This record gives sequence, C-alpha cells and structure tokens, in this order.
Amino acid sequence: MRKLSTKNLQGEEQRDEHFMRLALRLAKKGKGWVSPNPMVGAVLVRGERVIGQGYHGVFGGPHAEVEALRSASGSLRDSELFVNLEPCCHYGKTPPCTKAILEAGIGRVVIGTLDPNPLVRGKGAQELREAGVSVKVGVLEEECRDLNRVFFHFMESGRPWVTLKWAQSLDGYIAPKSGRSRWISSEQSRKLAHSLRAEHDAVLVGAGTVRNDDPRLTVRHVKGRDPVRIVLTQSLQVPVEARVMDPSRGRVLIFYPEPGDEERVSALEMAGAQLRGCKRDPQGGVDLDSLLGDLASMGISSVLVEGGARVLTSFLKARQFQRVVCFVAPILLGEGKRAVEDLGVEEVSQALRFSSARPRRVGTDLLWELEGPES
Amino acid sequence: MRKLSTKNLQGEEQRDEHFMRLALRLAKKGKGWVSPNPMVGAVLVRGERVIGQGYHGVFGGPHAEVEALRSASGSLRDSELFVNLEPCCHYGKTPPCTKAILEAGIGRVVIGTLDPNPLVRGKGAQELREAGVSVKVGVLEEECRDLNRVFFHFMESGRPWVTLKWAQSLDGYIAPKSGRSRWISSEQSRKLAHSLRAEHDAVLVGAGTVRNDDPRLTVRHVKGRDPVRIVLTQSLQVPVEARVMDPSRGRVLIFYPEPGDEERVSALEMAGAQLRGCKRDPQGGVDLDSLLGDLASMGISSVLVEGGARVLTSFLKARQFQRVVCFVAPILLGEGKRAVEDLGVEEVSQALRFSSARPRRVGTDLLWELEGPES
Repeated sequence: MRKLSTKNLQGEEQRDEHFMRLALRLAKKGKGWVSPNPMVGAVLVRGERVIGQGYHGVFGGPHAEVEALRSASGSLRDSELFVNLEPCCHYGKTPPCTKAILEAGIGRVVIGTLDPNPLVRGKGAQELREAGVSVKVGVLEEECRDLNRVFFHFMESGRPWVTLKWAQSLDGYIAPKSGRSRWISSEQSRKLAHSLRAEHDAVLVGAGTVRNDDPRLTVRHVKGRDPVRIVLTQSLQVPVEARVMDPSRGRVLIFYPEPGDEERVSALEMAGAQLRGCKRDPQGGVDLDSLLGDLASMGISSVLVEGGARVLTSFLKARQFQRVVCFVAPILLGEGKRAVEDLGVEEVSQALRFSSARPRRVGTDLLWELEGPES
Repeated sequence: MRKLSTKNLQGEEQRDEHFMRLALRLAKKGKGWVSPNPMVGAVLVRGERVIGQGYHGVFGGPHAEVEALRSASGSLRDSELFVNLEPCCHYGKTPPCTKAILEAGIGRVVIGTLDPNPLVRGKGAQELREAGVSVKVGVLEEECRDLNRVFFHFMESGRPWVTLKWAQSLDGYIAPKSGRSRWISSEQSRKLAHSLRAEHDAVLVGAGTVRNDDPRLTVRHVKGRDPVRIVLTQSLQVPVEARVMDPSRGRVLIFYPEPGDEERVSALEMAGAQLRGCKRDPQGGVDLDSLLGDLASMGISSVLVEGGARVLTSFLKARQFQRVVCFVAPILLGEGKRAVEDLGVEEVSQALRFSSARPRRVGTDLLWELEGPES
C-alpha cells in the first residue's frame, strides 16, 4: 500500500476520485437487475494498477466486493479496495463482505457513501477499522448517493420511490375524444417508457386504464425484468381476461378499498392475481401513504405510475411522488382525456411546482423530467 | 473587377458566399424597424477589400444599396456590390436603387434572391444586365429567403404572416380557475414576448382578453416599435377605458362582424379607435381570410395573435397561421382556462401537427417554435 505524505493529500484525493469513478461505472452495469438492492461496483488497486473489479449484477447474486476479490489473482495483501457503497457486515442472501475483505488482507478501503439503512449505517466501516484496515468514507459522495437515489429513498423513508409517467399532446391530453391514445408519443418515447418499466420494481395503473387501454405493463422493445403489475380499483371491476392478468409474466397485485365484493375478489384470485385490501382516505379514495407502506413491506422499492388521469392526479395532489416523467408530442388535440385533473389550484401561486425541471428531446417528442414537488 | 477563370469557379462561389454573409449580417440590424419592408444589407467590395457597407435601418429611410454607396469614398468604378435582395428599379418612398448603382459605375452585382413580388421580380437584375453590369443571382438563397420570410410570405400570398403566441402550464392552461394569469411564464419569457410584439406589424387579441386581462399590447422591457393594436369582437363589448385604447401608442383597430351596434361603434371611434366591419364565416364567427386580406391591404405584413383561447382556436382550426410560439412553464394547474379549445379532432391521426417543432429553454420555461400546419 502506498504511503502518502501530507503534501500529497490533493494528489491522493484526485487518485481516490479516479478509482471511485471506475467503481461507479461498474456499478451502473447492474441497472434494472439488482433492485431492490443498490447498484454497487468495486475496484481492487495495487499501486496505480487495477488488479481486480466487480459489480453487483443481479438481485440475490454475489456482491461487487466479492466479485472484485474473485477476479484478482495472487495475494491481495495491502492492496486497496474502492467501492461506492459501504460494504455490508451482516449475513443476508450472501455472507458479509467485510469478512471477505479482511480474509483477503486488503490494507485500505475507500467508500463512496455509508449504508443508508440507519440500523447498519457505519457498522461495516467500523468493523474494518477495528480490524486495522485504513478506511476512508465520502469520496464522490453526491454521485454515489445519486446513482442509488431510489435505494436511498427507500431505505430512508420506508416508502417506495414513485415515478409518475404519462405521454401527452402539447395541450395536455393523453387521448383524443375517441379515447384511443395509440399513439400520441413517438416510437423512441415508447421505447424509453419500456426502459422505465424495467427500472422500476412495480408498475401501477387504475382499473379504468385496464378497461380502456388493456395494457400488458410488461417490458418489451428493450431488455429488462418485468415489473410487478399493480392495479388500483375502487369497484373491483377488473376483467379477468385483461392482458395485465397474464400469469406468465410475474406477480399481479390488485389493491381495493375494503370491504370489497367477495365474489369479485375470488374471481380475480382464481385468475391468478393477489388481492390486497387497503385503507380509504378521508375523500373515499385509496389512502396512498398506507398503500405505499404496504408495497414497501413487500420489498417493492420503486413504483412507476402510468395512469390514468384519476390515479395520476391523486398521487400529484397528495404530493406522493419523487419524479414525474412527461412525454410531450408537439401536436394539438383541442379536446380529449386530460393527463391531470383538478388539483385544487385557484391561483398561479398555488400551482404544483417541481424542485427541478429538465426538458430533453426524445425523437420528435420532448421529455420533461420533473423532480419531486417543490417544498 | 476581378476576372475569374473557370478553374476558379469554386473559389468564386466561396468568395461570393463570404461577402453575402456580411450583407446578411448587416441586413439583420434592421430587424423590428423596417417592416413591412424587407431587411436588406449591402456590401461594396474592391478586390478582397470591403470599401463600403450599409443596411436598411428604418421604414421609409434609405435602402441598403444607397447607404453602402454613400459610405464609400473615391471612385466605385468596377467595384462589386453584394446585396441579399434584388435592388429595386421603381420609385417608391426613395428613388430606384438600380439608378444609383449604374450612376456609381459598379461592375458586378451579386444578389442573394430576387424580389418576391411577381410584378417586379427579376426586373431590377434585368435593368442592371442591360446596362452592362455583370449580375449573379442566387447566392445563399435559402438564408436570404429565410431572413425575410415574413416579407416573402406577405408578397407571395397577399396575406400577413400570422404568429400565434401563448404561455401555458405544462397541462395546457393559460390561466388558473381564478382567471388571473399573472404570471404563468418566467420573466425571460415575458421579455421575449415583448420582442415578438416589436417584430410584428400588429398584435391581435379578442375582446374577452381585453375585458379580462386588460393588456396594453405595447412594447415594453425591450427596445422596439409599438405594433398596431387589433381587437376582434363579436359584440363590440370593448370598454372605452381599456388600456389597449391608449391613443398615445399608435393605431387601434377594432374588427367586428357587420352589422354592429351603431352607438357602440361611435363610442369606440370617439375614444380613438378605428372600427372596421368584417365578414362572418359560415359558423357565425369572423371570416379570418377576409380579415387577413383587409389587414394586408392596410400594409400590415405580420400579425401576432396573443389570445384568448377562442381567437387562438379559430386561427388554429382554420389553419390560418405560419408559426406558433408557445411558452410552457413546468407547473401544473389541473384546471383553468385552456389555451386551445375544440379543434374537431376525434382521433390521434386527425391531430393538428406542425411542419417543424423546435423546443428551446427560455429561463425556467420551454419555448416551442412550431412552423405552419403540416400539409
């Protein structure tokens, strides 16, 4: 392991950031495959040479640190490990990474950011330090947090990350008068919408959308895991033959405010769906906070809400979202089905604003990425 | 004057484009001041040296060619003149430019594009040729036409160029439920909206907008000429005390479908407005083509239509526009006054589409520049 004098501190910082950037690049390879786990990359370095690397590639699979150790040959004594997230120190689906790091005799561990889980936060770093390893925490910390913002949100709030998504005309319609929305947005936008599905643990729509559009909610056109499919219904009027019910594409959850019609409940269960009663809010709709709590307890760390207007509006109005992804096609419909309904806004000063708003071109459309409600 | 052999043809082309670009840059200085005249710039060259330059700076003022000739000292015999638009050969507000060019003894004239007016088109170039001047036509022709697209449209169609402009929330509202639209768009957007006013000969709104928003329709926040103010009204219910009636800021035209209430007509005339009866279309609204014909006959070559929804929708539905400028603020209102109303669209395939759509950031807003309806 290199010894650095104080006058080399700035050089050390740049060097640490350099290898952390490599770790981050590796971590990103797990995107869409490791959730609800975080994306983690690890780089083993001796002197200025990378002698091993790895990333967390699939949920339940080996952690990045272990992959990096495995990829290196020869003694690792006094080498350095760079990893964007604090190594785990507990037995989960795999043995603790701290154990493997100590057994390999690593001399220095550089950690991007600590584990967001308040119950384990700092314990991995502490265990390494107590065993005599030199540990540095907080290199490219913002980038490291940002990469795993869904995981951090989930761990810190105990609620899944919620993305609201719709495609609209310039004048705000998701469908023309006929109700047939195919296709307002461009092919590139629709492809991107499938990537969004793959990046989330679950996709949620209202029963009206199931009845009108009969979406599959699966991932096509791009590679990726199918999300859990969730239908929100007031009346349990979800057709058993709806395409979303396809049992070959994973779990289907149907949430309804209790009590529900028992016959409908059994019919939908017979068709393969999992039915979940949920609380009503004071306005008689579904209590979203309680719904999100239920989803979190099922290990769902992120939800993509795809519509329709009633469901999108209820999430917007309750400020229960972290991100809005809105595709805008430069066309005018004049009338039709709106994306967003009454938000209780009387004056411009009461408008729903976002903490950041970034537009970018996607094919002929414009994609707005709007971050959480302005607080 | 340089003599160029055939093998220098490509070099000549590049040289001509170079000086034409200078002429175009000069022409742009007249933006907002010369309409309904075109923007014209002229460059005098001897060898590789620019010996004179000029541009049309204000409506009624000297033409670019004359300004360039005046700016040069000494003999101009056998020098070259580069000008983005064909020199005029008739007496208008100023004597013909062809006369001045011939008197100066210019040897070669390079013209970006011919005069769009079919009655004079080519005659200026012909007159120069017949007097022994070497004339080249069609250098950077597309750029030259594009710079004066409003003028070309006006000359070729006999109708003013129509720009529709509005500022909306992401979900398509120009005002919240309260009706008070101040301010949906950002300060930068509002400043740009004033530049748009200065670039057009006239600004048009419906009487409802006058009653609700009481706009002045003048140019503030930026330098520029005040446009002619036009109000479209079905009922002549335009308050005489409305700010748009301010007689110190130029002409106010009020168009109403004949016959109108004579008392209201006189009251508004007494207040300083010019009242104009106009035809009704089969649906009982104002016949826009006839209205635009009237405006053209008054020398108005461009109109900025600022609202409200009813007026904007009638221009959109009749496809009576060349450009839409739509400011979008990344906020949601949920309900309110819409920018665009029923366009008779039932299916996505019938949506109003544009021949081109370019989005760009303006402050925190997005500005869509949409060119004419897709044909």
